[in-house]
Amino acid sequence: MDALQMLLAQNEIRGLKARYCRFLDTKDWEGLTSLFLEDAVLDVEQDTGNPPLHGRAAIIEQIRIAVVDAVSSHQVHTPEITLLSEDAAEGVWAMQDRVVWQPGKSPIPGIASITGYGQYHERYHRSDDGWKFASLRLSRFHVDMHTA
Amino acid sequence: MDALQMLLAQNEIRGLKARYCRFLDTKDWEGLTSLFLEDAVLDVEQDTGNPPLHGRAAIIEQIRIAVVDAVSSHQVHTPEITLLSEDAAEGVWAMQDRVVWQPGKSPIPGIASITGYGQYHERYHRSDDGWKFASLRLSRFHVDMHTA
Amino acid sequence: MDALQMLLAQNEIRGLKARYCRFLDTKDWEGLTSLFLEDAVLDVEQDTGNPPLHGRAAIIEQIRIAVVDAVSSHQVHTPEITLLSEDAAEGVWAMQDRVVWQPGKSPIPGIASITGYGQYHERYHRSDDGWKFASLRLSRFHVDMHTA
Repeated sequence: MDALQMLLAQNEIRGLKARYCRFLDTKDWEGLTSLFLEDAVLDVEQDTGNPPLHGRAAIIEQIRIAVVDAVSSHQVHTPEITLLSEDAAEGVWAMQDRVVWQPGKSPIPGIASITGYGQYHERYHRSDDGWKFASLRLSRFHVDMHTA
Repeated sequence: MDALQMLLAQNEIRGLKARYCRFLDTKDWEGLTSLFLEDAVLDVEQDTGNPPLHGRAAIIEQIRIAVVDAVSSHQVHTPEITLLSEDAAEGVWAMQDRVVWQPGKSPIPGIASITGYGQYHERYHRSDDGWKFASLRLSRFHVDMHTA
Repeated sequence: MDALQMLLAQNEIRGLKARYCRFLDTKDWEGLTSLFLEDAVLDVEQDTGNPPLHGRAAIIEQIRIAVVDAVSSHQVHTPEITLLSEDAAEGVWAMQDRVVWQPGKSPIPGIASITGYGQYHERYHRSDDGWKFASLRLSRFHVDMHTA
């Protein structure tokens, strides 16, 4: 893989993550589904206490229930994307999410909204339809819990 | 347009947006003016309730009065920039703005500062002097209103 | 330097800054050390009131004491990176930092945590081991001081 091909692959993977945030915050579940491999893995154990989820359908449902009754804003920063081969890559992104639940809809007792800070740790594979998420793990530095 | 030309154009457009945020937050109105086409359009109706503004002079005046009596920090994330031709492109960015008005200067009764979350939806044209904003629309997911 | 070489250099410098934020927030002091030239300069006078620090050892110690008793999240945005030669560059980034000290560990009386907004102004040199920080200056637009 030459230098230009590497830049193009990183560019496409940044675009994949951009669409992830946009589809999540605009609640485009069909769009979001199109970004994951069928056998992808989602690990949000630090948030939910549950073990990693396997399979695209379970992943989308987990993401959907986390934000469907909220307005959310997911922001991601300064990716470090490493090409492992022509068709595989891994990446880490700094992240921030602001999630404001509708009144009475928060899953956290006494908490109306959160502002979270952490990192996404991801793997990507290139399919016939372009780069997709093979796995996504969220780690947290800190979460601000707001009562309003 | 080949792959390298596409990467260069996207790079220049990211630089355009970077200067937009920097000139806005450092209140460099001359610099900000240089980023817009003369017949550009600004749509901040979701914030102001007013219809889109036409023309660079009106745009800069709108932006100026929004932040001249405040400190502001505009942060933009994960652009999706699509080249429509060699000289036209469109893009969407996630955005966050923190605006803290000087005492008594806030335009919102009872509110001292905001933290906003949303998206910029933009069009760009390449002029003889490089890429410029042809249009800019701001949509909001959420705005936190702070009394202090 | 041709267009592809410029894109590659900017890409590597963005990676340098990404590692800076990651090493800082994960408290990897050895990793952080590896990012600075031995005779680098750090200017955080706007935060600390102290004049610029010279030399990598003093820089790392300053950064370490600023966050060692805290969780932190550093986010940087929309770099403007200008190549001055094949081996020298300068850049400006928008930045936000959230720093939450452990109880009783805050250096600011009565303040438990901050959310800061500003800019990094930096110079980079290319060494035999890749691009490194030659200097880093932090300027602030605003800092929110939180009592909790």
